[in-house]
Amino acid sequence: MGNHTITSPKGFWTAGVTCGIKKSRKPDLGLLVCPTGATAAAVFTTNKIVSAAVDVCREHVKSPKAYAVVVNSGNANACTGNQGIKNAMSMCTQMARSLNEIRNTKCGPRSVLIASTGIIGEQLPMEKISAGISKAIVKLSNLPQAGLDFAKAIMTTDTKPKNTSRQFDISGRKVTIAGCVKGAGMIAPNMATTLCFITTDVSITKRLLTKALKMAIGNSLNKLTVDGHQSTNDTAIILASGLADNRPIVSECPRYKRFAKTLTELCDDLAKQMAHDAEGATRIFKVVVTGATTKADAAKVARAVADYPLVKCAIHGGDPNWGRIICAVGSAGVKLNPEKLSCKLGSVTVFRNGRPAKFDRKKASKIVSQTEHTITVDLGVGKQTDFCYGCDLSEEYVRINAEYHT
Amino acid sequence: MGNHTITSPKGFWTAGVTCGIKKSRKPDLGLLVCPTGATAAAVFTTNKIVSAAVDVCREHVKSPKAYAVVVNSGNANACTGNQGIKNAMSMCTQMARSLNEIRNTKCGPRSVLIASTGIIGEQLPMEKISAGISKAIVKLSNLPQAGLDFAKAIMTTDTKPKNTSRQFDISGRKVTIAGCVKGAGMIAPNMATTLCFITTDVSITKRLLTKALKMAIGNSLNKLTVDGHQSTNDTAIILASGLADNRPIVSECPRYKRFAKTLTELCDDLAKQMAHDAEGATRIFKVVVTGATTKADAAKVARAVADYPLVKCAIHGGDPNWGRIICAVGSAGVKLNPEKLSCKLGSVTVFRNGRPAKFDRKKASKIVSQTEHTITVDLGVGKQTDFCYGCDLSEEYVRINAEYHT
Repeated sequence: MGNHTITSPKGFWTAGVTCGIKKSRKPDLGLLVCPTGATAAAVFTTNKIVSAAVDVCREHVKSPKAYAVVVNSGNANACTGNQGIKNAMSMCTQMARSLNEIRNTKCGPRSVLIASTGIIGEQLPMEKISAGISKAIVKLSNLPQAGLDFAKAIMTTDTKPKNTSRQFDISGRKVTIAGCVKGAGMIAPNMATTLCFITTDVSITKRLLTKALKMAIGNSLNKLTVDGHQSTNDTAIILASGLADNRPIVSECPRYKRFAKTLTELCDDLAKQMAHDAEGATRIFKVVVTGATTKADAAKVARAVADYPLVKCAIHGGDPNWGRIICAVGSAGVKLNPEKLSCKLGSVTVFRNGRPAKFDRKKASKIVSQTEHTITVDLGVGKQTDFCYGCDLSEEYVRINAEYHT
Repeated sequence: MGNHTITSPKGFWTAGVTCGIKKSRKPDLGLLVCPTGATAAAVFTTNKIVSAAVDVCREHVKSPKAYAVVVNSGNANACTGNQGIKNAMSMCTQMARSLNEIRNTKCGPRSVLIASTGIIGEQLPMEKISAGISKAIVKLSNLPQAGLDFAKAIMTTDTKPKNTSRQFDISGRKVTIAGCVKGAGMIAPNMATTLCFITTDVSITKRLLTKALKMAIGNSLNKLTVDGHQSTNDTAIILASGLADNRPIVSECPRYKRFAKTLTELCDDLAKQMAHDAEGATRIFKVVVTGATTKADAAKVARAVADYPLVKCAIHGGDPNWGRIICAVGSAGVKLNPEKLSCKLGSVTVFRNGRPAKFDRKKASKIVSQTEHTITVDLGVGKQTDFCYGCDLSEEYVRINAEYHT
């Protein structure tokens, strides 16, 4: 497990500490450092209300190089006005100064990226954060455990850290990509309370790194819905140190495609880990929609099914309730042919050409009771397809979110 | 209670019986009859998949007069193909024949309206329904209890029948409107698993009756969301016997406006009763959105808040969690000014001009713990407003819907 953390690619140092933002005294501050300077790219929430951290990070990621990412959990620094922006800037300034002292780098505040997650509407406790940065900077390490510490420091209601890594060869050079992610509720397509940090030692241009990240997140984290809303803070950052020493990727050549594909697989892995750790979730499912007129229609239907509480409850109960699926499909308001509409649970056809099919109920129950299964819906009007990940809805989800008090 | 049932207006006879569609042996067939012939109007689900009952009723409501409505619960007659249509037609034919025999009416099958609710994908048990119609027709009564029997016969997971009535004067004539409704889950704006039957003795043209019904439902049942999806069967029917003997309403005169206003109030009452009886709900709330650029924007935000599981869980826990409300508002994707955004829980301002306000937390907790409360959100960009009703999300909702097996 430890060897899959974000310190796996060459050139990355991390730390995770407790600085007292969380009342629980759990880890709440993480640092990710690339002392040689990394090419960076990021994608953010599309919520109309964004945190000060997102505002600042959006600007800073435009710098040619990033040397560090500073992340806190326990406080979202959202709805905090000018003071929030000042605090976010001050985190970057202090991080840059501390790093320059200890590593002899020449990192400016604009080469520091930032992310926050936690409670909305409270100012950051800057003294604690300041002490936390000082505490963490001397703990920076490129050992696997340090990556795990970082992954733990970004958690909120997550029950476990979520890490993964991939390796592949580019013309004889070994390239590593690793990532960690947090998020267990408030998750919808477009990332929600998700923070995602990816490191790689590939050498690649900023433009292509950005393009690959957008594609990878678009086909993974952005396909996951837990409760249908995105938060004010969602951020995914990738840093590329270039230390794999591969011939730099400067065009959309086969090497770029290999990188982008591997990155997408890594993000898909992280998305599934998030779905499994979603608040109260006991199983996950993938909704694949085929036969749509447009990809957007397919995506809309997939999400309507994955978000529908009655479908989520049925899956929680291990019930192959295709009636609720069909209901959600019809509700999505997209073009479909009611006489051609079909639905499969795993390999079992439960609905064919607008009519219920005869099927083995026990087998179907077994399928929807698995840890993972796929629901396939064919709209019968076109060739386009898309998908979405969802998870079941349990009493536990309600308990967690009714009892969590502001 | 009994005197508020749909037999209150002059000219209506009802019955409710058990014919064995439901395994529970609870009432499952209801008849509503206007032997003198009623002016009728109806609105239906906008789901792309509709039941055979909706298909048939949509046609039949075009007839100049309706003599009867036949309703069954326990089976939705949806996804049942041509056989489903034949069965729906046959219900109308038998109802017309039975009514003509017993009441000497000249009712054709096209003057019978129909509605079904219950399990999707199974053919109606026609022998049972046939026997049920014969059993019910001899029980027709215009006493209050008969209206209650009808309201009980249309229930599925509802815990109680939902009735109400209103009276007002039109130039010295007393006019009565009464309604009953069923629905406890699968409820979204645009009615969901809702069946709604309204009777009135007003004399009005079909065109104006239709217009008034659309407006009334649009501002009441269509503003209610329990779990964000509408079903295949949602139907609201109004019958006007004309026996109040008022000067007929033939234009949008003040008398029409009085009628339409009273009808809207009646439907609002029914919508709130539904919200309170929603599966597992312990309290309801109204989300009022002001300061929007368009009414559609206001409606979208109101619904985003009312549908958001995290808001619903917070309200279940009596937590004044404005952070989740703001998150849902920003997620809706409509035009807003983050620097002007404000939010009130009841009369307590919790968020003002994009910043958390200082407020009495105990008072706010008390407000969101009430049986009913109002959340007001001002987007700060315009003059338009709209609203939505929602209810809390409880462990009980999950239990009901995970344990209900197809």
